[in-house]
Amino acid sequence: MGGAKLMDGLAMLAPDVSLSVVVNTGDDFEHLGLRICPDLDTVMYTLAGLANPDTGWGLRDESFQALSTLERLGAPSWFRLGDRDLGVHLERTRRLRQGERLTEVTHVICGRLSVGPAVLPMTDTAVATKVQTHDGELDFQDYFVRLRCEPVVTGFRFAGIEDASPSSEVLQALDHAEAIVFGPSNPFVSIAPILALAGIRERIAARPAVAVSPIVGGQAIKGPAAKMLGELGLDASAVAVAKKYGGLIRGFVLDALDRDLAPQVEALGIRVLITNTVMRSPDDRRRLAQETLDFVRNLTPTASD
Amino acid sequence: MGGAKLMDGLAMLAPDVSLSVVVNTGDDFEHLGLRICPDLDTVMYTLAGLANPDTGWGLRDESFQALSTLERLGAPSWFRLGDRDLGVHLERTRRLRQGERLTEVTHVICGRLSVGPAVLPMTDTAVATKVQTHDGELDFQDYFVRLRCEPVVTGFRFAGIEDASPSSEVLQALDHAEAIVFGPSNPFVSIAPILALAGIRERIAARPAVAVSPIVGGQAIKGPAAKMLGELGLDASAVAVAKKYGGLIRGFVLDALDRDLAPQVEALGIRVLITNTVMRSPDDRRRLAQETLDFVRNLTPTASD
Repeated sequence: MGGAKLMDGLAMLAPDVSLSVVVNTGDDFEHLGLRICPDLDTVMYTLAGLANPDTGWGLRDESFQALSTLERLGAPSWFRLGDRDLGVHLERTRRLRQGERLTEVTHVICGRLSVGPAVLPMTDTAVATKVQTHDGELDFQDYFVRLRCEPVVTGFRFAGIEDASPSSEVLQALDHAEAIVFGPSNPFVSIAPILALAGIRERIAARPAVAVSPIVGGQAIKGPAAKMLGELGLDASAVAVAKKYGGLIRGFVLDALDRDLAPQVEALGIRVLITNTVMRSPDDRRRLAQETLDFVRNLTPTASD
Repeated sequence: MGGAKLMDGLAMLAPDVSLSVVVNTGDDFEHLGLRICPDLDTVMYTLAGLANPDTGWGLRDESFQALSTLERLGAPSWFRLGDRDLGVHLERTRRLRQGERLTEVTHVICGRLSVGPAVLPMTDTAVATKVQTHDGELDFQDYFVRLRCEPVVTGFRFAGIEDASPSSEVLQALDHAEAIVFGPSNPFVSIAPILALAGIRERIAARPAVAVSPIVGGQAIKGPAAKMLGELGLDASAVAVAKKYGGLIRGFVLDALDRDLAPQVEALGIRVLITNTVMRSPDDRRRLAQETLDFVRNLTPTASD
């Protein structure tokens, strides 16, 4: 789930690993009539080797001609739509309008982009992450892109989650998984929506699951996770994340920088692996993936053993 | 109406001329969820000085990155969507979905593109030109772009025309026009849909109107007009066009190449101006516009004088 770079590392372990990536869709939104799925796209583009290595979003070698026209026309242009990226949104939207499920559409697009692993949207039903802040409740992209995560967060709501169910593909992937890895993703807005779907938590708890910490030395690897922890009155530390996943995971991968925190995580009944978790190169991705895989394979069936 | 280049020439005569351009919308269609208005775009882009001089459609300095993604994804890519062009379609579609009329949307976009003349879609209601052929009835873009005008034409139908009415802006422009000029546009698919709207023919007949021939030496300046005339059993000549406009126009601008046809046009009770009508440069546009304007201004109020 999430953590596109780690998933890319796991994908490199094929055929030893047969990977399914369950992706948050709470960030999805309609923009200019297009269905945009930022997390799904980041995972797809990363696994296809097409991701922009500099920005952390979008495609490499991207151009912005359509966006410059939109700007000239005075249209909403706060969301940085690339030209190649637009092709994906147009085709996704076209297929969804034809009645295909997001899972099916993603399968077709991934096939065309030569993505090996199964990329599975967490649900085919609309779920919209709302960020509750001192400035009121905000749509996720409004908070994240337009307001650059500046408002102070007080909570989250996943609108539509009660009526949404995980896709059958997601349930099957979880039921057949040898192990489950939580990527170093934002626990509140990337992982929590997946966990909030009916039937997910039980399935994860029934299998060996580990998480890779998204917090290193009190900082988020990427995005507002540390800021959110602080604003919610929690320690901006890996321990707070491990606590949040308590009851679900049996192992936790901690960065070497945070080795002092290991006892606090172990006190939660969670095994710890200490290693370098910051992925700067493809080799880093593969190494962390291999170490994480070895770690989860060596966990005994229950966390207390 | 139509004939983007001539309209551009007329626009150059400002402030002597205050121009409103009434544009066919029968070619409009939905593609990939976008509302595309090919005639409107050609007029807008030409008047904005942004038209591609080589292709006769689309924008100059255009790129096709979104289209190449669509091709890679196996999406419909027969319609050559440029990246900058896409920006216009996205913004138009967004505003239409908000409930704005096409006339209003066009006004806003033209303003942003610094287009001087009023560009008026013939109607705000959907009208769809259908081309009846030996291969059955075809959607216009299907005939025009995908099948490259190859099927043999037997007739035309403007679906929705009975329920459509000209916009109030079009009616007002006609009611206040000093003169009306039919551009050298396709009489069947660019001019006829406009004339088929309720209230248009009477208004044109009440004012000095002239047409510039779209047929020169038996050939269409651009597009399938000559081919259509032949397939419909008519002479592929300027005379056939003048006949089609009979009762509406008082003057007809004939290319010097067709000077021998002048008596046949005059026999219809239509005055004739003979000049060079092929516009290869901006100067040609301005000159033909000026000559056409002088011609219509010198016509007496009724065609029979």
